[in-house]
Formats: sequence, C-alpha cells, structure tokens
Amino acid sequence: MKFDFRTAVNSDLPDAQKPWTAFPEYNFVGGHNDADSLPIDEITAACNSVLLREGKTLATYSLESGPQGYLPLREFLVNKLDKYAAMQCEVENILLTSGSLQAIDLINAALLKPGDTVIIEASNYGGVITRLNQLNVNMVSVPVDECGMCTEALEETLDQLTSQGITPGYIYTIPTVHNPTGSIMSVARREHLLALAIKHDIAIFEDECYADLVWSGTRPPALYAMDSTARVIHIGSFSKTIAPALRVGYLVADWSLMGYLLALKTDAGSGALEQMLLAEYCTAKFDQHVTQLNKNLQVKLNTLTNAIDREFGSTAEYHSPPGGIFLWVKLPSVINTSTLSEVAAAEGVAINPGNEWSLQPDSTQHLRLCFANPSIDAIDEGVTKLAAICHREFGLPLRGHNQPRDT
Amino acid sequence: MKFDFRTAVNSDLPDAQKPWTAFPEYNFVGGHNDADSLPIDEITAACNSVLLREGKTLATYSLESGPQGYLPLREFLVNKLDKYAAMQCEVENILLTSGSLQAIDLINAALLKPGDTVIIEASNYGGVITRLNQLNVNMVSVPVDECGMCTEALEETLDQLTSQGITPGYIYTIPTVHNPTGSIMSVARREHLLALAIKHDIAIFEDECYADLVWSGTRPPALYAMDSTARVIHIGSFSKTIAPALRVGYLVADWSLMGYLLALKTDAGSGALEQMLLAEYCTAKFDQHVTQLNKNLQVKLNTLTNAIDREFGSTAEYHSPPGGIFLWVKLPSVINTSTLSEVAAAEGVAINPGNEWSLQPDSTQHLRLCFANPSIDAIDEGVTKLAAICHREFGLPLRGHNQPRDT
Repeated sequence: MKFDFRTAVNSDLPDAQKPWTAFPEYNFVGGHNDADSLPIDEITAACNSVLLREGKTLATYSLESGPQGYLPLREFLVNKLDKYAAMQCEVENILLTSGSLQAIDLINAALLKPGDTVIIEASNYGGVITRLNQLNVNMVSVPVDECGMCTEALEETLDQLTSQGITPGYIYTIPTVHNPTGSIMSVARREHLLALAIKHDIAIFEDECYADLVWSGTRPPALYAMDSTARVIHIGSFSKTIAPALRVGYLVADWSLMGYLLALKTDAGSGALEQMLLAEYCTAKFDQHVTQLNKNLQVKLNTLTNAIDREFGSTAEYHSPPGGIFLWVKLPSVINTSTLSEVAAAEGVAINPGNEWSLQPDSTQHLRLCFANPSIDAIDEGVTKLAAICHREFGLPLRGHNQPRDT
Repeated sequence: MKFDFRTAVNSDLPDAQKPWTAFPEYNFVGGHNDADSLPIDEITAACNSVLLREGKTLATYSLESGPQGYLPLREFLVNKLDKYAAMQCEVENILLTSGSLQAIDLINAALLKPGDTVIIEASNYGGVITRLNQLNVNMVSVPVDECGMCTEALEETLDQLTSQGITPGYIYTIPTVHNPTGSIMSVARREHLLALAIKHDIAIFEDECYADLVWSGTRPPALYAMDSTARVIHIGSFSKTIAPALRVGYLVADWSLMGYLLALKTDAGSGALEQMLLAEYCTAKFDQHVTQLNKNLQVKLNTLTNAIDREFGSTAEYHSPPGGIFLWVKLPSVINTSTLSEVAAAEGVAINPGNEWSLQPDSTQHLRLCFANPSIDAIDEGVTKLAAICHREFGLPLRGHNQPRDT
C-alpha cells in the first residue's frame, strides 16, 4: 500500500502547492524583470572572465570569502551603497543571501517569536504579510501616503503600544519605492522615524529592494545612513536591477546581529557563481545598466498608465510612481479585486488583488499591476482585456476607448 | 546609545558566529572538493553556451520552469538516477534545492516537530545531528558497519519503539558511501530495511550525496528504486561531483509530499544560472568527469592512508572506504579527539572530532579526515604534523617514520 505523506506531515503546514503549469499570457504579477533590458552579451563576457580567472575556487564552499559571501561583491556593495544611499559600511557588515527573501527569513528568525508585535506600513509587500502571519506575529499597521510611512501616525501608534507595555520587535519599512504604492519617504519623515525608533529603543528593518529603480536617478539617504545607533538592518537585492532568477540579495547590519544571523544561515553559503558574475559585471557596468533599465521601465509604466486611462477612465485612481515595477490602482467600492483576480486569471490575465498587499479596510478595491516583464503589446492588450472582464463582472468601467461599452 | 541586538534576539538562538578569517593550512574538514579536478574550461564553455542561448529567461523568477527548478537539469537527473541508481522517476518528482542542506531542512520542516523521534545511523553526518538537536527531535541510533546500517539492530529498535507507542518520523540513512564511515549498504540490508519500514509504516529519508563517488564506478540500486510504496524521500547533490560552492542539490519524492515542500520553500527559487550551467555541462560530460574525479580522489585517499600508516602505525585503525571524500579513523581510548582537534586547529591542522559525527560512546576516539581538497603535499605534511601534535599531547603514536619518536 502506498505511503500517505498527507497524514504524515505536520498539521500546521501551509496548504500544499499544485504543480506549476506556465506563466499566464498577460502576467502582471511577480517581481519579474524586463528581459530585453538584460545585457546578456556583457553578462556572458563577465561570467567567462571571472570563471577563467578564479573558477577553481568553486571547489571550496563559499569560495575563499567565508560564509558572508564573495568578497569582491561585498566590496562592490560598500561602494554602491555609499554612492547611491550615502551608507558607510564595511564588508564585515554585509551578508550575501539567496535573494532578499532569505534575509527577511533570517531577520525574522533572529528577532521574532510567536505572539510578538511588529509595525509595518498598512499597504505592504505580500510576501512579508504572508511570512508574519505564518510566524503568528501581530502586525500593527501605519498608513502610508505619497511621502511614505505617516510618521505622525507612527508616533501615536508607538505611544499606544508603550501604554500597553508592548515593545515591537521592529519597525519594517520600504522607504524608497514602497511596495505596492511606489512612494518615496521624505527625508523629514526618515528623520522623524529614526527619532521615534531611538526614543522607544526599537530596531528598524529597512527594505530597499526597489530603491535603485528611481526615474530621477537619485534616491534619499537610506535610514541606515542617517542612523548613528546601529539599529537599522538594511536589505537589498540584485533581483530588480539585474535578474531575479539569480537569487542574490544582501543584508547590512551591525556585527552584534551578524554573528547570530550567520549561525542561523545553515545552507553552507548562497550560490557563488552568481555572486562572482554579479561582482564582475556590476563593478564595471552597474551604473550605465541601471540608467538604461530605468528608461525602459518608465516607457513600460507610461504604456500601462496610458492603457488604464484609455480603458478604465475615471474608474481607476492611481499615483504614477517615481520608480519601481508596479502600479497600485484603486477601483470603486462595487468592485472586489479578489473576485476580479480569480476571474481574470482564468482568462489569462494575472493581477495581485489588494487584500494580499494591504491590511487597509479598502484593500479589496485595490490591485497591483507589475509592468516590468510583459511586453509593451502585452501591457496594452492585457489592460484592455482586464477592463472588459471588469465591466462584464461588475458593470464598470462604463466607457472604454472613450466610447460607452455594451451593457 | 548604540542599539543592543544581543538583548533583542530570541533567547533560544544558536551561539553567534565569529568573523571568518581564512581556511586552515592543513584543511581536513568540510565537503570541499579537489580544485584540480574541476574542468573549468569546459564549465566556462557550457556557461557561455547556455547563457547566449537562453540567458534572457533569467529576467523571470525560476526561468520558465516553475518552482521545482530548471527543467533540463531535472531531465538530466531523471536519466542519471535511472542509469546509476536504477531509479524510475519523473521530472515532477524532482525539486532542485540550494544544496542538499535545503532539502534536509524542508523535509524536517514538513515531517518533524519538537519531541518527535527519528532513527539514524549511530555515526552520522554532523550537519544532520546539529539540525535534529536544534529541532529538539529525539535521535534513536542504530549501529553501522562495513555493510551499512545494521538492520537486525534496526528491527529490535523498531519493535522496542512500537512497544512504547512511538512511531518515528522517518528512518534517515546514508546507504551509499556512508558519512563518516564510507560504507556501502548491501542489497540484502536494503531489502531488509525496506521491509521493516513497510511493516512499521515509516517513511525512509535516503541521503545519497556521496553515492557517485564510488571507486568501482557502480553503486547498488537506491532504496527509492527498490521501493514500490512511495515512502522513500531521496536526496542528492552536485556539490560532491561538480562543485560545492554552486549550491545545487535535489530531492526526489512522491507528489503527496512535494506539494507541501513547495509551500515551505519560500525563497522564490534556487539559483538558476547554476542550474542552467549544470544541465548544460552534465548532460554532455557528467560520466567522463566523475570517472576522472574518482581516479583523482582515490589517489588522494591512498596518499592519506599511506601517511597515516607511516605516522600513526598501529595507533590508528580505519577501513579504507570504497569511495567518498573522508576517512573515519579510530585512535586508542587515551586520546580524546575533541581535545586533539582544538590543539591541532590552533596549529593550522583542522580535523572533525568524532563526537560531532557520532552518537556512539566511543565517539571521542574517532576523527574524520576529509581528503578531497588538500593537495597531495598538504595531506602528507598535515598528517605528519597531526601525529606529532597527538604524540606531544597524548604520548601516542609511539613511532613515526618507522622510528621511535622523541619522548
């Protein structure tokens, strides 16, 4: 008789996944990037060069750089974080991870236990919400607007928690190109956030995964850069600037935390070839690549907003973001985006429903559209199709192509 | 004032690690491989070829293969596992992981909770012992000899556990090139083990990380291949055959388990470039590479045993293994290998003390010496130095170079 793993597994596991089939035809979900922007000839040349020079070191775990990852890539990051985010850090403060998701998991494993409380922005990265739910951690949310986390509201929240005797495990924030709203936190709010964290003696978890994707080419100093108390844990990624499938992220933190994170990172190192490739390529080409990538992404964003304006008209509200790879859209309250996303998925249009990316009461009116990966044509056609599905299911939008829709 | 992460982290964390410095001069620890055997020109050519052909797919998470990993590498494994281990499996049964360590962590997360019991071989992979201790899982050990796990003893153990109302979460075994003893389990014992697992309705966790490193070039059928009840979870790795720093392992299991493992694998995929490289290289060259690698490893083993015979004489007992990258050595009871390893480490000779690799009472008489990574000269010099240290600390071995040592 066949062994039954369904009865053998732990009872508190997440639901089993179904076999993967293929990407949807109109794929507006996931942090995939623009394939045409990937400079594959230059990446191949960089790979060649580093492999022929020092490929033999792949025979040792972690090359000759130790468990924090390939030293030349950490050296590149020291320079890059100084240049773009005004951060002063040393290679000893950097841990290379298997995507920034591993960094998130390590930080959570070190700092949180079931029943703990954390503060997060009310609209937020779905992956973080899922993880914190899985860990049975209480999320206290603070509103976010076009200037980032509302720190006046944070101040009230912290005072309330203090009066209840609760000290949050950390304040999690995505200050630069917030996910999903795309907002960039003002410097004044960064200062206020830091002052509050110091007053209440709380760690800050700063997620800057998208911070290089700013149309203007400049970003504010990171919270890590503005802090003199070593309380900011900073994470970033090469997924958004180079390629997500490489799975290389990084974490920057004081050594009083790093030693514990290394003890928790029991995978004998993250992928070294990818770290070698990124060091070789980025040291020479990062700046020019990201400049071009941002131009290409902005064209796609414009395609998306033009299509939405044309197909949804006043039915869709959004702030065109100053960077990133996603648009956060609000629809009228008669539309439930969870239902919309299910129906649309069955017809080849994948979108993120707002309730997976927000703790706000109006989350079911929101949806997140990722625009980096689909082609210009797919963006245009996908939005057209989404509007038609939305009209069929909810009676809105009333007009499309500047003409009334059939009812 | 500086934030103090030491008081902020959870109280039950493993000890914080210290900063890495460098590899020891005589490095007999870790699963590092033979750098000279790494065919870097061919690997570079394979990397070139796959990147130029399909590198653009790196812009999407998991390429176009879904969360189980790059399809051509899973196809290679289907053929390789059939050819070498008589396993019949489909690409749907294979999950590519970040080293086999991630596979171990996923299996443990799915099947074990604190207080559970598992059965393991009494001498064992240190990483598994550490993980099971960390999970607060009870390890019930079964002796292992030159024919692998002693299944007569297993039968008694299972009967005892049954009489106590305990059903183990799994039986963990390293049947082919056991770590650390190097033994290969006989087919008769494999049959007996399977019959016992079926009788008691227990899953088997088969770790075949070293199974390709057999001097004879042939290995027995995997337990997975001999089982018709879908109870065997099989793991393997490219760390030992190609390069450990790549961090690519794999897991083979029935889909009734796979869906849960995918839900637990929250890293958005393992490194894709490395999977692409391995598929490209291994499909063309795996057989000839492993044949040559085994020849080179056997030369290193012979160097090691010659040096031990010369420097330790009858003080050291060992069985020369039929494959692998390590030698399990027993010393007289006056020698404590934990002390020896500490003293030797301070003098540049790194060895694994037996108590980290065995639950046996005589574990402190044992040590594990990994021979794949150090050069021929380093093996010879390192053993000479180790014997001198051992004599200085414990008065044994009495003779070296076939002459009495100074006392």
